[in-house]
Amino acid sequence: MTKIDFEKPINDLLLSIEKKYPPKLFSAIKYAVGSGGKRIRPTLCFLSADFCDVPRKNALSFALAIELIHSYSLIHDDLPCMDNDVLRRGKPTVHVAFGEATALLAGDALLNLAFETLFSAAKTNSDLLPACELIAECAGGQGMIGGQALEFENERFSEEDLFILDKKKTGMLIKCAILSPAYLSGSPEKTSALSSFADYAGLAFQLSDDLIDADKEEKTSFVTVCGKEKTKSMLLSLREKARLALSKWPGENEALYAFFDKLAFRNN
Amino acid sequence: MTKIDFEKPINDLLLSIEKKYPPKLFSAIKYAVGSGGKRIRPTLCFLSADFCDVPRKNALSFALAIELIHSYSLIHDDLPCMDNDVLRRGKPTVHVAFGEATALLAGDALLNLAFETLFSAAKTNSDLLPACELIAECAGGQGMIGGQALEFENERFSEEDLFILDKKKTGMLIKCAILSPAYLSGSPEKTSALSSFADYAGLAFQLSDDLIDADKEEKTSFVTVCGKEKTKSMLLSLREKARLALSKWPGENEALYAFFDKLAFRNN
Repeated sequence: MTKIDFEKPINDLLLSIEKKYPPKLFSAIKYAVGSGGKRIRPTLCFLSADFCDVPRKNALSFALAIELIHSYSLIHDDLPCMDNDVLRRGKPTVHVAFGEATALLAGDALLNLAFETLFSAAKTNSDLLPACELIAECAGGQGMIGGQALEFENERFSEEDLFILDKKKTGMLIKCAILSPAYLSGSPEKTSALSSFADYAGLAFQLSDDLIDADKEEKTSFVTVCGKEKTKSMLLSLREKARLALSKWPGENEALYAFFDKLAFRNN
Repeated sequence: MTKIDFEKPINDLLLSIEKKYPPKLFSAIKYAVGSGGKRIRPTLCFLSADFCDVPRKNALSFALAIELIHSYSLIHDDLPCMDNDVLRRGKPTVHVAFGEATALLAGDALLNLAFETLFSAAKTNSDLLPACELIAECAGGQGMIGGQALEFENERFSEEDLFILDKKKTGMLIKCAILSPAYLSGSPEKTSALSSFADYAGLAFQLSDDLIDADKEEKTSFVTVCGKEKTKSMLLSLREKARLALSKWPGENEALYAFFDKLAFRNN
């Protein structure tokens, strides 16, 4: 797997806004975006671009935008009125470090910056627009935000409810990370195959998270609803389906297979 | 002035998302967007389109996006960690009516929906892209959000600080409402004139707001820093400059002149 160079583009983006933003707002944004995230979504985006023979630089604005959207969603998710988390990746959350108002605005600014990045790229290459629209839809009220809202609108969840919730809340950003480069591929066959692969990957990522958090959280999750063993066997079944989706392209599918396993079996 | 038909497009947009969003999230969005706003920014956008001989339907996605961005900014501004306002337009604010988590997410969803609307329009007409990018920049960390952040980052404000803050916080959305249709006009002369007009209009709107709120708020404002009389004379000077900016186009400039006066002299 080619090394994914994502830190340089994200740092370049931060540099480009530093002088234009109020200092504290910028510091909060830098703290959130630069603080050692795993860059799962950008990695998926680039691996999918490789699979589709799309140059990574053409998918860069997608990777950046999706990572910014992911960062903003964590800041807002951690706020006292949401999950009220005080630590993230071993460091104080943004509202603990910078205050609630700045955290709220830093999240807003990151979501906005994601779309500024996409418009700026689309302005010089309008072929990017269908994928930009996909990203916006996946991030919004029918996608990720819809999933976050569902979590607060209901008290009890069946297995089916959880599928819907996780498909939106976690799955949609994973989905657009994998699918956006395919929109540039000109290959309906690969696009359709990646769409299925992305669905399985998003769900597997959530199940794997639920297993990791099984012993430390009281939140409703697949593990609390279905039990550890069933969750593990669901993961194996998702792995099989994901491999089947891309099985037509031996050789080309290996990096995505390997990254799927890395995501899905983090706790083993 | 032609009647501005904006309620139908906004209701059509709400109808198009109703079944796709979680019910409570949708209700909060509808409550915020449908609840009798003055539609100042869409009106400015359409009047500017008229001035530029741009069909209003070509500027519709701009008007919608800017109104959605304005709505989200009010929801987030009213939150307890920001201004902690419990009433807006005589009704309970969104977080009072629906809870803080739903209000936060409704704001996020509205910002996102603004960009979904723009991408969807740009996909079929890529000429819209420069104006879309302008709107995104005006709304973000170097624009409106930057202005909101400045308000929280500083305790004392000089007259100059207030100019910068208000230019960002209030002025930038007014600016892109007026300027976005000009980007479709193909007339550099009108675009440049409208850019100046928009700066004066944005500031005048804020000064007029400050005069209205002079007796009921303790917030730092032009009135508290410069006094009522100076604020009033600044308003008159802005009116003169705004008229001068468009004076080359007698006949065509009248609707914008009239709307400027409506905005700037609401308290007289």
